[in-house]
Amino acid sequence: MENLENSTDCKETVSPLNNSGSTVNSTVSGYDGKAMGFVLVHAGAGYHSESKAKEYKHVCKRACQRAVDRLRAGGLALEAVTAALMELEDSPFTNAGTGSNLNLSGEIECDASIMDGKSLNYGAVGALSGIKNPVLVARRLLSETQKGKLSAGRIPPCFLVGKGAEQWAISHGIPACPTEKMTTKFSLSGYKRNKRKMELAEQVETKRKRQLCGHENDFGCLEPVGDILVAGEENNSACLDTVGVVVVDREGNVAAAVSSGGLAMKHPGRVGQAAHYGCGCWAENARDVSLYSTAVSTSGSGEHLIRTMLARECSTAMQAENTHQALLEAMQNKFISSPFLAGEDCVLGGVIVLRCCTCGEAQRSEDIQALLVEFLWSHTTESMCVGYMSAQDSKARTHISRLPPGAVAGQSLAIEGGVCRLGTVCRCWWFTYCICALSSSRSETASEA
Amino acid sequence: MENLENSTDCKETVSPLNNSGSTVNSTVSGYDGKAMGFVLVHAGAGYHSESKAKEYKHVCKRACQRAVDRLRAGGLALEAVTAALMELEDSPFTNAGTGSNLNLSGEIECDASIMDGKSLNYGAVGALSGIKNPVLVARRLLSETQKGKLSAGRIPPCFLVGKGAEQWAISHGIPACPTEKMTTKFSLSGYKRNKRKMELAEQVETKRKRQLCGHENDFGCLEPVGDILVAGEENNSACLDTVGVVVVDREGNVAAAVSSGGLAMKHPGRVGQAAHYGCGCWAENARDVSLYSTAVSTSGSGEHLIRTMLARECSTAMQAENTHQALLEAMQNKFISSPFLAGEDCVLGGVIVLRCCTCGEAQRSEDIQALLVEFLWSHTTESMCVGYMSAQDSKARTHISRLPPGAVAGQSLAIEGGVCRLGTVCRCWWFTYCICALSSSRSETASEA
Repeated sequence: MENLENSTDCKETVSPLNNSGSTVNSTVSGYDGKAMGFVLVHAGAGYHSESKAKEYKHVCKRACQRAVDRLRAGGLALEAVTAALMELEDSPFTNAGTGSNLNLSGEIECDASIMDGKSLNYGAVGALSGIKNPVLVARRLLSETQKGKLSAGRIPPCFLVGKGAEQWAISHGIPACPTEKMTTKFSLSGYKRNKRKMELAEQVETKRKRQLCGHENDFGCLEPVGDILVAGEENNSACLDTVGVVVVDREGNVAAAVSSGGLAMKHPGRVGQAAHYGCGCWAENARDVSLYSTAVSTSGSGEHLIRTMLARECSTAMQAENTHQALLEAMQNKFISSPFLAGEDCVLGGVIVLRCCTCGEAQRSEDIQALLVEFLWSHTTESMCVGYMSAQDSKARTHISRLPPGAVAGQSLAIEGGVCRLGTVCRCWWFTYCICALSSSRSETASEA
Repeated sequence: MENLENSTDCKETVSPLNNSGSTVNSTVSGYDGKAMGFVLVHAGAGYHSESKAKEYKHVCKRACQRAVDRLRAGGLALEAVTAALMELEDSPFTNAGTGSNLNLSGEIECDASIMDGKSLNYGAVGALSGIKNPVLVARRLLSETQKGKLSAGRIPPCFLVGKGAEQWAISHGIPACPTEKMTTKFSLSGYKRNKRKMELAEQVETKRKRQLCGHENDFGCLEPVGDILVAGEENNSACLDTVGVVVVDREGNVAAAVSSGGLAMKHPGRVGQAAHYGCGCWAENARDVSLYSTAVSTSGSGEHLIRTMLARECSTAMQAENTHQALLEAMQNKFISSPFLAGEDCVLGGVIVLRCCTCGEAQRSEDIQALLVEFLWSHTTESMCVGYMSAQDSKARTHISRLPPGAVAGQSLAIEGGVCRLGTVCRCWWFTYCICALSSSRSETASEA
């Protein structure tokens, strides 16, 4: 069992930002000794404007409530994770489901996946159009896998893409939804603005090409000539990716899910980490050598998250004793300074992580097994909006985590989180850490490439 | 450096089948001391009929020759691996490119991916129609990634699917190819036969459903009612999957690629392991803690290879001292008895593996670095057809590896391979091992699930 006293330990490079090591007694409402479980959600790692903070927090709150409703009704982790993710997909403020970024052709193509820590089954969809809740299709693929083989011994698919995925969903009773209904005024205005920006960038590029005539090399003409595109809302007020949920239920099962509209102005058919096994989400119940159950969901630049397999890497790291130290090292060594991203000078992403184990005290009780839940988030983006709630809480807590002033997005990271004991009177310890000044190690790695 | 004397070591459960530990002097032709490198290919793990053995071997031979031609012309691993894979895709006898299995709608949808061990870059396509050589699109995606960001700072995609992938390929100068040209009389007759088989199976299923009326459960109606579908050729003469190539070049860089038409009668939009990062292929040059460069390509039931991430697992295992022992353990523990496939009683797949390091002796030479290459294949399917060749050889060697009599496909495995020293006079040591009787451990794991 994790020693709570050690939860606030940190290396010299780790400096407490606020609330470090403080103890908070979580609100307990109508606790009947049976409803148990915990949910952690996020509404995208990216940039969250102060002006829209209320909306982001509100959708996280609703998503937590949906998951907890399921847990209280006796639902397991897989049900709760799906319910919370559908809520996030339905919000016009997130880049998933309704309100997703539009691709180069002005269309919505979504990625989503879900993993069950108990059965280790997995379902995913990529570049899916015309379905309101992509996670529902991923969930259904997972369920069908659990039913065994198809007729004539065929193995059921775990990953479907494009038109085929849409047809499969409809033939399995998931209703079609016209793209127009999923497009919002924000996503449409973002698309128009980005299109103008791209045209401008391409004009500049053509001009540079002409100037370079005779001095051209393979790389010169394709280097970035503009900023990363904005998406979803008013200019500079939001630049978000992928949403995600991780849950542990009363039996200690974990589940994770992720959903994304993908990068703004992506090429049609582009599939990001949200549909990629090991990259978008991961859930694994404790077994044999794994002491802890872990669940992870990622957000950020899909290609970077794919090449680093960040979800699975973070899950593996969470078997170490000290969770925040392990997450710090995973984010530093397996993401920002990953040899798989050696050529990249700006690595944008975020994760939510949940790990749990049975509490020593509770093992004496025959009725209820108390669970010790550690929940963390970390991001290299400007900000990340998260929400969390236990089935014993009367309402969810939400928070927008931000890099500290002076920290460079894509080269620095923030880590925050807490510890919560479920099953008796809920107690919650809160810690916040922030790491910056990783820029130098990033540049060194990049220059070695 | 690997001790060659140990290359034939084995556990008590490992019994030499034939040629164990024998030494073969490879044919050396026109060796100029510069052409160096090694290629290992396979034409699918599955079932290869004796009657068609000549064709399978012939295509492997041609593929090896294509890779070696590139290596001799000064090409690096990435070029050689692409050339060999294109040859495999072009053969009507393999389930990749031309001659691919048809899906439920009678269409061809291909998956392919490629990984460069030097840059660790990666490119993949899924459910791609209308392109003769899917690996060419994967390779182009990889090259475009290496050129840096797109206009307006957009990150170039590493994974494209469906219609979007096809459009991207065409816009990047890769010609379209009508599906009719990629369909062979074998794939078409296989499709018709499978369709009849499925219809029959579904009739039986409907009958069973009626009989079970009143006793139905969620699982009963969807259990397998027939054999695994045949594909590609005359009934029972071939049941193949994914083809693959691994290469090491004169500089010691490794590359790996994989291509597949996917499962026969798959649902449109289904993407298998051949397009999945870490699952279809893996290549990683030696660096820091990794002593050896490794390259892996997998074949078999896509869903099983995805959930076990077999390519990456085998690559990681190859850092152990004893290659065949490490591969044996990886195939046993990470595939056949993997907790990720706990519910499966028949786990079908195969891998080709290459690992290399600089030879001690050669480090004294200033001109050429000699390389010690270990090459292995392992499969749980009935058979696997492989070919291999060094740039110093006058011709490729080919072989159809088969499970021994009595071994049960999906529950047993075979491992074979050799060791080759490149850079001086090429010498090749050959070993063959075969493991069976793993059925009991499989059943135990399955029953625990």
